[in-house]
Amino acid sequence: MPTSQAPTSQAPTSPPLLADDRIRARYWVETPFPLEAAVDVLAGEQSCGTFTRLPGETDELRQASGAVVERITRLDTCAQPSLPMRALPPHMGSTPVFQRAEIDVSWPIANLGPSLPNLHATVAGNLFELKEFSGLRLLDLQLPVAFAQAYQGPQFGIQGTRDLLGIQGRPLIGTIIKPSVGLSPQATAALVRQLVDAGIDFIKDDELQGNGSHNPLKARVDAVMPILRAHAERTGHQVMYAFNITDELDVMRANHDYVLAAGGNCIMVTVACVGLTGLAWLRRHSQLPIHGHRAGWGMLSRSPAVGMDFAAYQQFWRLAGVDHLHVNGLRNKFSEPDASVIRSAKRCVTPMFAAPAKGCEVMPVFSSGQTAEQVADTYRAVGSTDLIYCCGGGIMAHPGGVPGGVQSLREAWEAAVQGVDLESFAASHPALAQAIAAFRK
Amino acid sequence: MPTSQAPTSQAPTSPPLLADDRIRARYWVETPFPLEAAVDVLAGEQSCGTFTRLPGETDELRQASGAVVERITRLDTCAQPSLPMRALPPHMGSTPVFQRAEIDVSWPIANLGPSLPNLHATVAGNLFELKEFSGLRLLDLQLPVAFAQAYQGPQFGIQGTRDLLGIQGRPLIGTIIKPSVGLSPQATAALVRQLVDAGIDFIKDDELQGNGSHNPLKARVDAVMPILRAHAERTGHQVMYAFNITDELDVMRANHDYVLAAGGNCIMVTVACVGLTGLAWLRRHSQLPIHGHRAGWGMLSRSPAVGMDFAAYQQFWRLAGVDHLHVNGLRNKFSEPDASVIRSAKRCVTPMFAAPAKGCEVMPVFSSGQTAEQVADTYRAVGSTDLIYCCGGGIMAHPGGVPGGVQSLREAWEAAVQGVDLESFAASHPALAQAIAAFRK
Repeated sequence: MPTSQAPTSQAPTSPPLLADDRIRARYWVETPFPLEAAVDVLAGEQSCGTFTRLPGETDELRQASGAVVERITRLDTCAQPSLPMRALPPHMGSTPVFQRAEIDVSWPIANLGPSLPNLHATVAGNLFELKEFSGLRLLDLQLPVAFAQAYQGPQFGIQGTRDLLGIQGRPLIGTIIKPSVGLSPQATAALVRQLVDAGIDFIKDDELQGNGSHNPLKARVDAVMPILRAHAERTGHQVMYAFNITDELDVMRANHDYVLAAGGNCIMVTVACVGLTGLAWLRRHSQLPIHGHRAGWGMLSRSPAVGMDFAAYQQFWRLAGVDHLHVNGLRNKFSEPDASVIRSAKRCVTPMFAAPAKGCEVMPVFSSGQTAEQVADTYRAVGSTDLIYCCGGGIMAHPGGVPGGVQSLREAWEAAVQGVDLESFAASHPALAQAIAAFRK
Repeated sequence: MPTSQAPTSQAPTSPPLLADDRIRARYWVETPFPLEAAVDVLAGEQSCGTFTRLPGETDELRQASGAVVERITRLDTCAQPSLPMRALPPHMGSTPVFQRAEIDVSWPIANLGPSLPNLHATVAGNLFELKEFSGLRLLDLQLPVAFAQAYQGPQFGIQGTRDLLGIQGRPLIGTIIKPSVGLSPQATAALVRQLVDAGIDFIKDDELQGNGSHNPLKARVDAVMPILRAHAERTGHQVMYAFNITDELDVMRANHDYVLAAGGNCIMVTVACVGLTGLAWLRRHSQLPIHGHRAGWGMLSRSPAVGMDFAAYQQFWRLAGVDHLHVNGLRNKFSEPDASVIRSAKRCVTPMFAAPAKGCEVMPVFSSGQTAEQVADTYRAVGSTDLIYCCGGGIMAHPGGVPGGVQSLREAWEAAVQGVDLESFAASHPALAQAIAAFRK
């Protein structure tokens, strides 16, 4: 299996990117051209250069505005290009060698200012198409603190989310309303009633359930919110419901306001579908936590030879203002390897900027084929309970029904945090025992 | 060279996607699992299904909301997965076979309504990560006419752009201000003066030149616009300047207004960096043509095994409201093959919807290593002069300077449109003759 070809960001031997007043990006590259020359093309193309040196490109201008290649570390070579190319270098014969490398490039922030859309064009713009490269992937970023000053970042983040629910020291146990799309508002509400009665902490719409005519957002809010309000009054416990308001800006604002007025406590947005400027705009208006779904992420991440690592991707959305961000889960139903899931989750809770600047930490959201079975491994790998742990079938398909499913997840996390073996804990916790029996493969 | 592995959308043998009230998408897929079952997973995952059939997923609900697999056409097979996978199917031995296919899938519009962000989540959301596929690429879309009614589309388009400049029957000859970034507003203006004196039709900022402190947008407008206004007064010819206002929404609005008040006639936006909702929002406000730059497109297009074809990509941005859209150029400095460039350009001028709905046609923008040398081939392949033809070095590095560069491009297009051989035409057109001598490889 070719999973080993995937570049891994932050290889242990790579130095950290310097935090100063320059924009710094790390790339994995592959080229059949002389490596240093190819990297120079990249730096030129993404700053002051073009394919021929022009009269206006003086030494002073290059000094002030040129991108700087800070480091080139050669990695392995290969005999076939990872991505199709227009042509090989003319000097190459029938046995070309494709050199791989990790490189660091930096830009003066004066080129663009602390602007996320322009940052995107600079570090993840036209360079992927350069004919010099048979592979090019953005691995990581380190941004100047001016970005932390220019952007609001998460409004609630980890602690703000916990405080809204009064839950400390354990993850939020969550689920996704399924079927993803097609349920009526009333059927959604009936499911919500089951879930809150079973002790769930967090519920979200599916990313496919937006504002379709079978289940318009406002009708869904009208149907669901009375159940959540009654539950809070009866038990004293708030349940968080992330209403998917993904849409055009005016619709999102109206629907945010509608959720807020109904006493709702979270909105969900598929971040790449809304886009950077739309999300930053929503953040400026929002009074609720923004649950960030990353649908479409596979387009950028699935090929190891192009696109970007989550280490870079998540920084855009954190600055723009999400409070939660999806990271997949261990042994998920998608193609992402477990090591990548864990790296992503750890990055979400790692500050982007050193104090006194805000760190923009967000709550990682685990989901996709999750049950009580992955809990211990998740906790061991992440080393934190600052996360939302979403299960669909892991709750719905539990032999004890929804209450058994929720209970089994609570128990699995208790066991993990206490450092008790899952089977030992299950001996005195029947819901957990049932989950093991049902879901162990 | 592995360029042949690239899927080509609209293979001649594939039937066109039906235009009706369903959302229709075409994909290229590759899977080691039984093909029909894998495709069913995709359809389920992107509509009402999940990995286990849930109580609420009734037959009625599936009938109303399920995605329908409309067609599966088997293509070739391969012995290695194009993308890394978590695991192979358990039944496979040591010689797995990866089946490739072209498939059409459709959704009822009631699932989401005519909403571009939710369309993105549906047709280009979580499916790329499905563990069943070792390759999955969105090739094309056919949208219900409800999208044409819900979105404004291009405000100026091809004819509106021509009318602003009074140019009919030939392409707009354009250039990009270089060095890309680092020039002062005054140096930019000096270059603009040279260009307009030479008879250029269209000038654009580089996508890296946004609103940095060395060349703030407003200072650039202040420096450039007096030259363009004086030129128009003196000659009666308007030159179009696409000011790159890519930024957060409030800044973009203020800068659009500033350009408009100064008598400017175009704004430029890097579409993927701004995002879908930001662009649609800008279109609602804008009184100027929106020049759409596609920086970042390589992330979605460069691997043939994932991402999307331009045939699908451009539909999002046309509906959201760009008037011009970049398509690269023949024999460009990037990795895109010529056939792909031509396919893209042709799609830009092909209506998205049948009359009486608006077609949302936009002007394709050719650029990247273009000179007089590619003109005849471009015209022959596209069969139209409805395009913007941008050259950097092809103008600046012409032996006759900027005037010679611009003149040579006008002449090359005259020759092409008249069907005269370039060399014969050059015999009586010295600027063209100089271009051939300088740029022929």
